[in-house]
Amino acid sequence: MKKKITLKQIAKELDVSISTVSKSLRNSLDIGEETRLKVQAFAKFYNYKPNNIALSLKNRKSKTIGIIIPEIVHYFFSTVINGIEQVANENGYSVIICLSDDSFDKEVLNMEMLANGSIDGFIMSLSKETQFKEDFHHITEVINQGMPVVMFDRVANEILCDKVIINDKQAAYDAVQSLIDKGRKKIALVTTVDYVSVGKLRTDGYTKALWDNEIPFDENLIIKIEDVDTCEITIEQFLKDKTIDGILAVNELFAVTSIKAATKIGLKVPEDLAVIAFTDGIISKYATPTITTVSQSGIKMGNKAAKMLIERLESEDSDDENYKTEVIETHLIERESTEV
Amino acid sequence: MKKKITLKQIAKELDVSISTVSKSLRNSLDIGEETRLKVQAFAKFYNYKPNNIALSLKNRKSKTIGIIIPEIVHYFFSTVINGIEQVANENGYSVIICLSDDSFDKEVLNMEMLANGSIDGFIMSLSKETQFKEDFHHITEVINQGMPVVMFDRVANEILCDKVIINDKQAAYDAVQSLIDKGRKKIALVTTVDYVSVGKLRTDGYTKALWDNEIPFDENLIIKIEDVDTCEITIEQFLKDKTIDGILAVNELFAVTSIKAATKIGLKVPEDLAVIAFTDGIISKYATPTITTVSQSGIKMGNKAAKMLIERLESEDSDDENYKTEVIETHLIERESTEV
Repeated sequence: MKKKITLKQIAKELDVSISTVSKSLRNSLDIGEETRLKVQAFAKFYNYKPNNIALSLKNRKSKTIGIIIPEIVHYFFSTVINGIEQVANENGYSVIICLSDDSFDKEVLNMEMLANGSIDGFIMSLSKETQFKEDFHHITEVINQGMPVVMFDRVANEILCDKVIINDKQAAYDAVQSLIDKGRKKIALVTTVDYVSVGKLRTDGYTKALWDNEIPFDENLIIKIEDVDTCEITIEQFLKDKTIDGILAVNELFAVTSIKAATKIGLKVPEDLAVIAFTDGIISKYATPTITTVSQSGIKMGNKAAKMLIERLESEDSDDENYKTEVIETHLIERESTEV
Repeated sequence: MKKKITLKQIAKELDVSISTVSKSLRNSLDIGEETRLKVQAFAKFYNYKPNNIALSLKNRKSKTIGIIIPEIVHYFFSTVINGIEQVANENGYSVIICLSDDSFDKEVLNMEMLANGSIDGFIMSLSKETQFKEDFHHITEVINQGMPVVMFDRVANEILCDKVIINDKQAAYDAVQSLIDKGRKKIALVTTVDYVSVGKLRTDGYTKALWDNEIPFDENLIIKIEDVDTCEITIEQFLKDKTIDGILAVNELFAVTSIKAATKIGLKVPEDLAVIAFTDGIISKYATPTITTVSQSGIKMGNKAAKMLIERLESEDSDDENYKTEVIETHLIERESTEV
């Protein structure tokens, strides 16, 4: 319906120089306010958006935070969102959520859509595919144009921005140490085969705890679950083949499934097999036995991420490149699966 | 920064009549395109938004669907979102999610924010407070301005729009009937004390099933949980006071808590007490014993809602007021909590 317009045409239409148009679109103070606003309005009306993010930033009045998370049927991400909502609402900000569905393309498209004037800044956790591809151009571009981004949980070192993480390595270390303290010596790690940064860190923590306690590391005690649907059979077979007395599972689902498989072949939890899960969700709380978990403090993580973003949005010095990485404390919530 | 502008000032500025401005803002075809667009651009630039939704609709190119749900840490709503995403993505639509947090004000603010040009239409489920207040002006206003709304699950008869629901009364009836078929005669209903439409319907279905089977209705067998934190104690006390052999719980949490309370006082599930829960989520699947559930088919509900919205968005006759209510089939997923 609307005609496409070029920089040149805007200049002609408004009887100003191309340089004036260009500078106005960059909101340069070289150009008087009246002209700047007129040029911007025209450009906007004709969908001419060379520098759209930077433009929308100058008025910063959407008072809206955009969240991009990989998936929604996931207790941890849901609690982070609740944590963000709390702080956002206290500070008069609205929150918009988009899902990347662990797809790189969807992450890029959603960022583009939201950056387009709807929001003031992002809080995000990377999709698995983005972590695998290691292509972060869509995020660095947004940051370079002056829109603040706070990353949480699944972050990338290559991206210069504020981050909120848990110390996954230390958390895994502490969990394995607590199993060793309870006299467990043959401890398995039930994990995934993905490219998510946290997976590697948790394996490192597991390995280091064994090492520090002079327990020989056995690669065969790391179970990489390829297919969640057959995960119970995989674990059952593993428990038949190996004699172990402890399990650290990287998520609740693997933990509860390990308990089911163990019970099926006559092992008692926690007597024969102690189990600890990452992520304190509803399964752990309502399973029988209830499951000891590493609390990732999703609420705290969300609170902190929102605080960091809002501080940046409301700071005088919006070009401050002094980025911080906040580490949220984790702790073990001890339940029946480790108490003998 | 920008001056406030009146209809009159726009007319003066552009040297046209007030009626022309007014009609242009309503996108009336009485006014030539050039003038209409010019007036709209001016009004937009000065944040004059008398009819903003209708304006943004005419171009309908955001290709984005807005979802408003009451809460996110809720398996059912998460699966509905996944269902919406599937169909939306297949049809080239993006999805934006906002949470009402069961608050009327947040629902109103979020609708206002999203309706403001970011999206083409809404898929929503009412907040508890909105259902209690019975104030739906924010939704009818959006619909009256021509933006389609599809409601799901928590709907209101007063709002004329497309709806996707399950037959909560029939689903509760079927669940209670299945307990009666298994020989249970003293069946309790564990429910909430809220104003959500589905709660009433489920109670009606429970009551009708008893009636049709000539089992006397006993008001004292309806447990209304006021506080989730003390819900286990409430149910435990109830099970000590009354002799019952079946429970229909309106959610998974009440079901798993009922089982825990029953086990605690020495009742066996399902031998002494059979339990059925509404909503097939992860707790039911991983509890011990696993719990028989009424599947609400969140994915199907989301699929259907997205289809209805997209059909309306892409239909030639956008003013068609022939609204439909689609009823998604539910079914019982039988698990250990009812199998003797």
